Amino acid sequence: QASLEDYEETVKKAKEAWKVWADIPAPKRGEIVRQIGDALRQKIKLLGSLVSLEMGKILVEGVGEVQEYVDVCDYAVGLSRMIGGPVLPSERPGHALIEQWNPVGLVGIITAFNFPVAVYGWNSAIAMVCGNACLWKGAPTTSLISVAVTKIIAKVLEDNNVPGAICSLVCGGADIGTAMARDERMDLLSFTGSTKVGKQVALMVQERFGRSLLELGGNNAIIVFEDADLDLVIPSALFAAVGTAGQRCTTARRLFLHENIHDEVVTKLAKAYAQVRIGDPWDSDTLYGPLHTKAAVKMFLDAVEQAKQQGGTVVYGGKVIDRPGNYVEPTIVTGLPHNAPIVHTETFAPILYVLKFK
Amino acid sequence: QASLEDYEETVKKAKEAWKVWADIPAPKRGEIVRQIGDALRQKIKLLGSLVSLEMGKILVEGVGEVQEYVDVCDYAVGLSRMIGGPVLPSERPGHALIEQWNPVGLVGIITAFNFPVAVYGWNSAIAMVCGNACLWKGAPTTSLISVAVTKIIAKVLEDNNVPGAICSLVCGGADIGTAMARDERMDLLSFTGSTKVGKQVALMVQERFGRSLLELGGNNAIIVFEDADLDLVIPSALFAAVGTAGQRCTTARRLFLHENIHDEVVTKLAKAYAQVRIGDPWDSDTLYGPLHTKAAVKMFLDAVEQAKQQGGTVVYGGKVIDRPGNYVEPTIVTGLPHNAPIVHTETFAPILYVLKFK
Amino acid sequence: QASLEDYEETVKKAKEAWKVWADIPAPKRGEIVRQIGDALRQKIKLLGSLVSLEMGKILVEGVGEVQEYVDVCDYAVGLSRMIGGPVLPSERPGHALIEQWNPVGLVGIITAFNFPVAVYGWNSAIAMVCGNACLWKGAPTTSLISVAVTKIIAKVLEDNNVPGAICSLVCGGADIGTAMARDERMDLLSFTGSTKVGKQVALMVQERFGRSLLELGGNNAIIVFEDADLDLVIPSALFAAVGTAGQRCTTARRLFLHENIHDEVVTKLAKAYAQVRIGDPWDSDTLYGPLHTKAAVKMFLDAVEQAKQQGGTVVYGGKVIDRPGNYVEPTIVTGLPHNAPIVHTETFAPILYVLKFK
Amino acid sequence: QASLEDYEETVKKAKEAWKVWADIPAPKRGEIVRQIGDALRQKIKLLGSLVSLEMGKILVEGVGEVQEYVDVCDYAVGLSRMIGGPVLPSERPGHALIEQWNPVGLVGIITAFNFPVAVYGWNSAIAMVCGNACLWKGAPTTSLISVAVTKIIAKVLEDNNVPGAICSLVCGGADIGTAMARDERMDLLSFTGSTKVGKQVALMVQERFGRSLLELGGNNAIIVFEDADLDLVIPSALFAAVGTAGQRCTTARRLFLHENIHDEVVTKLAKAYAQVRIGDPWDSDTLYGPLHTKAAVKMFLDAVEQAKQQGGTVVYGGKVIDRPGNYVEPTIVTGLPHNAPIVHTETFAPILYVLKFK
Repeated sequence: QASLEDYEETVKKAKEAWKVWADIPAPKRGEIVRQIGDALRQKIKLLGSLVSLEMGKILVEGVGEVQEYVDVCDYAVGLSRMIGGPVLPSERPGHALIEQWNPVGLVGIITAFNFPVAVYGWNSAIAMVCGNACLWKGAPTTSLISVAVTKIIAKVLEDNNVPGAICSLVCGGADIGTAMARDERMDLLSFTGSTKVGKQVALMVQERFGRSLLELGGNNAIIVFEDADLDLVIPSALFAAVGTAGQRCTTARRLFLHENIHDEVVTKLAKAYAQVRIGDPWDSDTLYGPLHTKAAVKMFLDAVEQAKQQGGTVVYGGKVIDRPGNYVEPTIVTGLPHNAPIVHTETFAPILYVLKFK
Repeated sequence: QASLEDYEETVKKAKEAWKVWADIPAPKRGEIVRQIGDALRQKIKLLGSLVSLEMGKILVEGVGEVQEYVDVCDYAVGLSRMIGGPVLPSERPGHALIEQWNPVGLVGIITAFNFPVAVYGWNSAIAMVCGNACLWKGAPTTSLISVAVTKIIAKVLEDNNVPGAICSLVCGGADIGTAMARDERMDLLSFTGSTKVGKQVALMVQERFGRSLLELGGNNAIIVFEDADLDLVIPSALFAAVGTAGQRCTTARRLFLHENIHDEVVTKLAKAYAQVRIGDPWDSDTLYGPLHTKAAVKMFLDAVEQAKQQGGTVVYGGKVIDRPGNYVEPTIVTGLPHNAPIVHTETFAPILYVLKFK
Repeated sequence: QASLEDYEETVKKAKEAWKVWADIPAPKRGEIVRQIGDALRQKIKLLGSLVSLEMGKILVEGVGEVQEYVDVCDYAVGLSRMIGGPVLPSERPGHALIEQWNPVGLVGIITAFNFPVAVYGWNSAIAMVCGNACLWKGAPTTSLISVAVTKIIAKVLEDNNVPGAICSLVCGGADIGTAMARDERMDLLSFTGSTKVGKQVALMVQERFGRSLLELGGNNAIIVFEDADLDLVIPSALFAAVGTAGQRCTTARRLFLHENIHDEVVTKLAKAYAQVRIGDPWDSDTLYGPLHTKAAVKMFLDAVEQAKQQGGTVVYGGKVIDRPGNYVEPTIVTGLPHNAPIVHTETFAPILYVLKFK
Repeated sequence: QASLEDYEETVKKAKEAWKVWADIPAPKRGEIVRQIGDALRQKIKLLGSLVSLEMGKILVEGVGEVQEYVDVCDYAVGLSRMIGGPVLPSERPGHALIEQWNPVGLVGIITAFNFPVAVYGWNSAIAMVCGNACLWKGAPTTSLISVAVTKIIAKVLEDNNVPGAICSLVCGGADIGTAMARDERMDLLSFTGSTKVGKQVALMVQERFGRSLLELGGNNAIIVFEDADLDLVIPSALFAAVGTAGQRCTTARRLFLHENIHDEVVTKLAKAYAQVRIGDPWDSDTLYGPLHTKAAVKMFLDAVEQAKQQGGTVVYGGKVIDRPGNYVEPTIVTGLPHNAPIVHTETFAPILYVLKFK
C-alpha cells in the first residue's frame, strides 16, 4: 500500500510524463496504444487467470474482461486518427470557427474489485489517445492484476522511449482515493464503485470545480408479462442474476412476474438454479464461483435475513456453502412487498427478489 | 422561352452574383434564406393555387409542396450556423488538419412538371446557405410558378442589397437543358426528370468531369402477404397508386398479392377506387385531378393497350373521362405475368398492375 | 416574489405540461420555437429598451441580447430536424445499436441580472426543441423583462394549443434558487451567476445526483507584447474593459503589458477612457451607462480602496460620478504586484488592473 | 494474364463470398482487417523491396506505401465499431428516422503502377470493414506485388474461416478493365490512373448508373513570391519535383517564380539537382531511381523535345542516363510561355517547368 508521500511523488512524475505525452501526435499515441493492446492480447490467458484467482470470477469471465481492454485499444487506435471538433461558420466575414480538442491533463482512474481490468482499459485507452496521462488506483483487494497490467504497459511505453509514468499506478485504499478526489492536479477523475462512496467523491471533486466520471451502483429489474416466451425468460434471468455471483452493477436483482405465470416461473427458475455448476473458478466446467471476500459473505447473509424479516420467503438457496472460499448459494426470495427496503437496496451478492404484479 | 443568348447572359450574371454571395458569412446567408421562407409562407395559398392551376394536382398537394420549400428553408437556416468539416489529428507534431468546406459555385437546377416548386426549394435553400448561386430551369409547362417563385426570392434578395441574380431563372426546353449539362460553368447540376433524359444529362456532365445530382424515375411495388391487415392495405395502396394521378416518382405501380388474398384485395380495392372523388383540383372536395398534358393522356391509353396485349385484364378504369381537361380513370390491371414488359416500364399515369405470388 | 407554495404549484404544472410537450414531434416543436423567435423579432426594440431600463446597459446592447435569443431560435429550428444519436455496429450478427436521444424533462434555468434575456434564450430554445419544459428564475432585480418575455412565449404556446406552462416563470431570490437546486424534479439545472453561489448550487445538485450546467465568473486577461499593434490594442482593451460597465463575465479585468511599452499604453489608454461617452443608456449616443445597483457601487469603491492598499495607483477614474443613478468612473489601476489579492478577485465593475512584465 | 472467362469465374466467386462477408458483424470484420494489417506489418520490408524491384521506386518509398496500407487497416479497425448513420427526428408522432448504412456489394479496384500497394490498401481496408467484397486489378506491370499482397490476405481470411474470394484478384489489361467498368455486378468501381482512361471508365460506369471513385491525373504548381524563404523553397521544390522520379499524381510540375528571384532560385535549384544521389533503388543511399518502363523514357524524351520546340530552355538534365535500367536525368526547363501546351500536359516524368511572373 502506498503512503501519501508515495502518492505525491507519483502524481509529480505523472504530471511530468504528461508534458511529453501531450506533445506526441495523436496517431503516434494511437500506435503505442495499439502495441499495448497487442501486448495484452499475447498474455490474455495469463491475465485472465490472474483475474480469476484474485477476484474469484470464472476463467471465461476473467479472460473476457481482458478482451474488452484489447477491443477498446483497437477502437482507440482508430479514434486517434479521427477525433476532433468541427469547423463552424462565423457571422464575421472571412472568418471560420475552429473547435480544437485538447487533452485535459492527468486522468485519475479509481476502479472496483469486480472488474479489475476492463474498467481501467476503457478509461485509459481512450484517455491515452486523447493525450492524457493516467493515474490508476485499483481495488486494494486486486492489486496483483493492477501491477501486472501496469508492468505490461510500462514495457511498451519504454520500448517506445516515452516515460512509463504516463500510466502510473498507486496501490491504496480510501485515504489515497480521498487524496485523488481533492487533488487539483487530477484534471479528470473517473470513479467506479458504490453509489455511497461515489457521492462523496463527486462532492469532493465538485467542491474544487473538477471534472468527474461516475460509474456507480444499480438495481436492475426484469419485467415478465404473461405472454412471454419462458424458454427465453428462464436462462436470461438466470444468467443475469447469478453471473459473476451477483457482483456486477448490471446484475438483475428484481424479477417482476405477472401473477398468472408467477408460480410457474419460480418453479422453473429454481430448477435451473439447481443445475448451476458451482466450483473452482479456474475449472473450465464451472459457471459460478465464490464471493470476493468474507465481508461480502456477511453482507449476503444479512440481506437474506432482512428479506425474511420484511416478509420474504427463500425458495432457493440462502445459505453459505460448506467448502473452502467465500461460496454462498445463489438465492431466490419471493413474497416481498414492492416497497420492502431490502428490495430497494443493492446487495452485491446473488440474491434475486421475485415480485408479483397484475 | 429563353434563347441561348439569353442563357449566356443569365449565366454570366449569376456567376458575377455568386462572387458577392460567396463572401457573405453563412449565418447571414441563412438569415436571407429565412426571409425567403417567410415570404413564401405568407403567399403559400396563392402559390399552392398556382401550382394546382398550372400542374393540375389538387389544392392540398399544391400547398403542400410550397410548405416543403418553407420547411427546408427553416432547416437551411439552422444549417447555416452549424455546417462544416472536422478538425482532424495530424501525424506531424504541432499540426492539425482542417477540413474547410467551400461553396462549389453555380448550381444548375433542372426540375420537372410534377413538383414544380418543392424540388427547386430542396435544392436552392441548401445550395444558398452553403454559398452557391442557383440557375433554375423549370419544366416548360410550369413556367408561371417558376416566375412567381423567382420574383418572390428576388424581392427578398434586393431588400437585403444582394443581387437578384443569385437565384437566376431561365425558361426553356431541351436545348437549354443540354447547354446547362455541357456548360463548364455549371459547377453542380441537379436534374430531376425521367431516367432516359437523366442518363443523357449525367453522361454530358461526366464528359466534362462535372458534378451531378440525379433524381430520376421509379417503379415502386407493394408486397402483401396473406396475414396482412387489409384495413391498412386498401387505403395505403389507393393513396400510393392514385395520388397526384400517378404522376409521382414515388407512385406505387406494382401490387404483389399473395394468391390466397388476391381476389379479395382486388375486389375491395376496386370498390375503394370507385369512391375516389374526381373533380376540379381547386375544389377542396376533390381527391383526384387531371393528367398534366394531352401527351400524358396518350401515354396512359398506350400503356393500358399494351397491358391488355401482354395478357392483362382491366378490372377498374382504363378509359379517358368525358369532361374538359386531361382526365383519365384511375386504373387497375390484373393477370399480367411478372415479366411483362409494361410492368417494368414507368408510365407516369394512375395504372396499378396487380400481380399474384405464392 | 413567489412563495414556496407558488413554486410548488408552478413545478407541478410545468411537469404536467412537459408530458404534452415531450410527445410532440421535434420538428413541430421547432415550428413553435420559430414562432417564438418571430414574436421576439417583432418586439425587439421594445424588449431591448426594457432591458436597458431595468438592467442599465446601453440600448444597442439591450437590443443585441434579444437578437441573440432570436438567433438561437433560428438555430434551434434547424436542430429540431437534425438532432439525434448515431446508429452503431453491433458485435452480434443481425443487430445494430441505436442511440436514441430523449428529453431530460424539466429544465430549471436560473439567470443573472447582467444578461436578463439572452441567457434564458440560449437555454430555453435548445431545451424546447429537445422536448423539455423550462422553469425560469430570473434575477430579482430584472423581473419586468422576465415577465415580458414569458408572456410573449405564452401567447405563442397558447396559439398553438399547448400549455403555457411549458415555459414557466417563478420570480424570487435565494430561497427559490435553493429549492430548485435541491428539487429532484428539476432534471437539469442551468445556473448563471457568481462562482461562489454556483459552487453551492452545484453541490446541492450533485448531492441528489442531478445534472447541472454552470456559467460562472471569470477574470480575463489581455497580454500585450512589445511588438503589438497599439492601434488595435487600445480600442480592444477599452471595449473589453468598460463595455456593459464591466458587468460581464467576459470583461477584461487584467492587462499585462511588456515593460517597454507599459507607459505608452497606459497614457494612450487613459486618453481613450477620457473620450468614452457617459450618459443615459437610452440615449443612442451613449457608450457607457450606470452600474446595476447601489450595492454594486459600494463593491466598486471597496475594490478601488483595496487596490490602493495593496500597492496600486489609480491613473484614471476611481470615483463615483455625481449624477442620478449608479454611475462610477471607468477606472485604470497600475503598479499592483501580480499576486495582489484584488487582482485575483472578480469585481463586477469597470476596473482594469494594468500589470507589467518583462 | 486473365482471360474474360477467368474474369467471369472470379466475379461469381467474389459475389458468393460477399454474401458470407456482409453477414459478419462489422466489429468482427474489423478484427480480420486488423489481422491483415498485422500480417502486412510483419512482412513490410519484404513487400517494400518487392515494390522497389518491380516498380522502381526507392526502398524507403516502397516500404512507405506498405506502411500506408498498415495504417489504414488500423484506422478501419476503429471504424468498424463506430461507422453508421444518424437517428433523426420525424414529423410523425411516436416515430424516429433511422439511417442504416449497408454494404454496396462488390467493389472493383483498378490501381496504377506507381502506387501498386497503397492505393489498393486505402480502398480495400475501408471497403472490407463496411462489408464489401473486393475485386482488384493491379497494373499489368506490377503483378508480382498484387499476387504477394493477395496471398497474405487470403491466408488471414482462411485462418478466420471465411472465403479468400472476399479479396479477389484478376491480373490483366484494358480488356479486363473495360469488362469491370461495364459490369453491373461491380457495385462500386474505384479507378486510379490517367485522366484520359478515367474519363472512359467513368462514362461506362455512368452509362449503367453505377458508382465510381476516380483518382486521376494532376499538374501541380508551386508559386514563390519574392519574400519567400529560399532555404525552405529549394528542398521543398526538389523533393516535390523529383521524388519517385516524377511519377506521382502529386508531383510538382510547374514552378512559378517572381521575376525578382527567378534567376537565383533556378541557379540554386540546379545546384541542388546536381546533388541528388541517383542509383539502384534498393541501395539505401539512393534518392532517385529509374522510370518504370521503356515507354516512359520515350515519353520523357518527347516532352523535353516539345518543351524546346515551344520555347523552353533545358537548364538541367534532359537526357537519358547511360546505365542499365530506364534512368533519365531529373530535368529543369525555363523560359516557356505560360500557355505552352506542354506546360498544361501531365508527363509522368521528372520534368519541372519554371515560369516567371511579376
